[in-house]
Amino acid sequence: MTKERAYFESLALKEEGRLSPEHVPEVYHFDRTMSLIGMRYLEPPHIILRKGLIAGIEYPLLAQHMADFMAKTLFFTSLLFRSTSDHKRDVAEFCGNVELCRLTEQVVFSDPYKVSQYNRWTSPYLDRDAEAVREDNPLKLEVAELKSKFIERAQALIHGDLHTGSVMVTRESTQVIDPEFAFYGPMGFDIGAFLGNLILAFFAQDGHADQANDRKAYKEWILKTIEDSWNLFYQKFTSLWDEHKNGAGEAYLPTIYNNPEVQLLVQKKYMTDLFHDSLGFGAAKIIRRIVGVAHVEDFESITDAAKRASCERRALDLAKMLLKERRKFEGIAEIISAIRQY
Amino acid sequence: MTKERAYFESLALKEEGRLSPEHVPEVYHFDRTMSLIGMRYLEPPHIILRKGLIAGIEYPLLAQHMADFMAKTLFFTSLLFRSTSDHKRDVAEFCGNVELCRLTEQVVFSDPYKVSQYNRWTSPYLDRDAEAVREDNPLKLEVAELKSKFIERAQALIHGDLHTGSVMVTRESTQVIDPEFAFYGPMGFDIGAFLGNLILAFFAQDGHADQANDRKAYKEWILKTIEDSWNLFYQKFTSLWDEHKNGAGEAYLPTIYNNPEVQLLVQKKYMTDLFHDSLGFGAAKIIRRIVGVAHVEDFESITDAAKRASCERRALDLAKMLLKERRKFEGIAEIISAIRQY
Repeated sequence: MTKERAYFESLALKEEGRLSPEHVPEVYHFDRTMSLIGMRYLEPPHIILRKGLIAGIEYPLLAQHMADFMAKTLFFTSLLFRSTSDHKRDVAEFCGNVELCRLTEQVVFSDPYKVSQYNRWTSPYLDRDAEAVREDNPLKLEVAELKSKFIERAQALIHGDLHTGSVMVTRESTQVIDPEFAFYGPMGFDIGAFLGNLILAFFAQDGHADQANDRKAYKEWILKTIEDSWNLFYQKFTSLWDEHKNGAGEAYLPTIYNNPEVQLLVQKKYMTDLFHDSLGFGAAKIIRRIVGVAHVEDFESITDAAKRASCERRALDLAKMLLKERRKFEGIAEIISAIRQY
Repeated sequence: MTKERAYFESLALKEEGRLSPEHVPEVYHFDRTMSLIGMRYLEPPHIILRKGLIAGIEYPLLAQHMADFMAKTLFFTSLLFRSTSDHKRDVAEFCGNVELCRLTEQVVFSDPYKVSQYNRWTSPYLDRDAEAVREDNPLKLEVAELKSKFIERAQALIHGDLHTGSVMVTRESTQVIDPEFAFYGPMGFDIGAFLGNLILAFFAQDGHADQANDRKAYKEWILKTIEDSWNLFYQKFTSLWDEHKNGAGEAYLPTIYNNPEVQLLVQKKYMTDLFHDSLGFGAAKIIRRIVGVAHVEDFESITDAAKRASCERRALDLAKMLLKERRKFEGIAEIISAIRQY
């Protein structure tokens, strides 16, 4: 880790911790010269969420906690709550975290769509699938739009790497860690990362099923968690918006958006756009974990390569469809139905 | 002018001058402590373009020059040409120009859509029109989207105030001045400002017509200039793109966008989105000049209030339609037809 990384990680941990203290470990001390972060030790039985998902453990509060974390950190750092002055000051500060933004650009939006020495996939099973990704012009068109949005759109302070390996859990506690990729970017990148990684976990389950546990009930729990995460996020985010609609937020001045009809219109449009962004970014995150450089333990821990490839292909095919057709979906229930069809 | 303003003006003048030296006056010296800009004196017969448009003077090279200025300054400061690192460094620098961004937000995207003591219009003729703007929910929905894009989307270094009062002209020379509002924002804001102010000039002509000159030929010249400006911009911008497609631009890596079909797809999509942005921002700029705080001499110089109101209403009605239905238009020729119908 470079010294820069530690600085931005500590900065983001403190800001996220201020906004969502229940779900972010407290930073006690940061020393910039030493790049030293002193922070809460997440004691056992906290484990990385991804490992819990592989083990088939249910976390009844996960959706609620993650919805709360995402709603608070994204809403309160957006122009729905803040003034342009505060926003531009913080955007400028986090522009300094450019090296990690570049890394994301490369591994999420570039490498999977070109021949790259770093790419790998479950070969030979997925050779043709990986090639198809590289040759899919409509897919690459959509990826370009998401990449531009990732670089250009300073919508809120995002975690920047909100997959299931950046969350530590017990049945009662959910703690978001490792925000060293944080910067002002599109909200959908965080929401999509979390939902996309739950979808990866879902498709990996058939590879973990055995005679003792067919994982069917667990797959249903994952689907419910995906659905609840979005729905609860939607509720919490719009509640915060309603609560603060007469505040300092620069985006929708109360003197302009001054009647219930127009308020409903803007909120519905905002949330629909955010939903489509989340689906797009989520799909991109799935694709890169199957044909890109960095894979996920959900699939990697399936030792039978043919079985692994079959799980991966279903996730990949869903993601390609979502990326290209995301604007046709109106709600998360439709996504759950789509997942079941792959 | 605050000292901040002079700093960002000199910074933008130098950058724009480097990219488009034929159309930006040279800066000889800037002293930050003194907020002193020493720059080329634009000698007579240079006059402010807006005054020329009111006087009915044709500028045969205007469209070509402005297309050149916009194509070069916007392309070379975008991710089509630059790396993310350079981009974020400059975005951060221009975040400092926040006070002027806030002023634009207020006068362009807020004031016209609410009751504000600073608003004025040709009363009593346009009283009902001004009220209708404030009560138009679909219009306010679109304005919100443009405002968010203005604040959040760092697409390129934009001039930020590219109306016909920021351009000095002779028949042979076109010089863009006063970029004190410059920051990294959406390209369409500049293109829309220029086209929108030409549209204002068009609708003002009937108020300047007299027995000696019915202005009919001049109106045709303005329409042709609007059409040529966009078409030449499109040509120059896409030529620059083609020329530099194998360069350091981060948005579309040549190893991914590696066949003529996908290159055509991404370019067409990019330019269509930019066209729609330009129409939206242009329409917002027209509206604010009729029912907002700052008006334009094109209309103000029409002394007969009834006649002035009639000209203004036609521009306002066109702008409202454009703002709400801009995505239906596929090319500038359709816009020219629409202008003729109002």
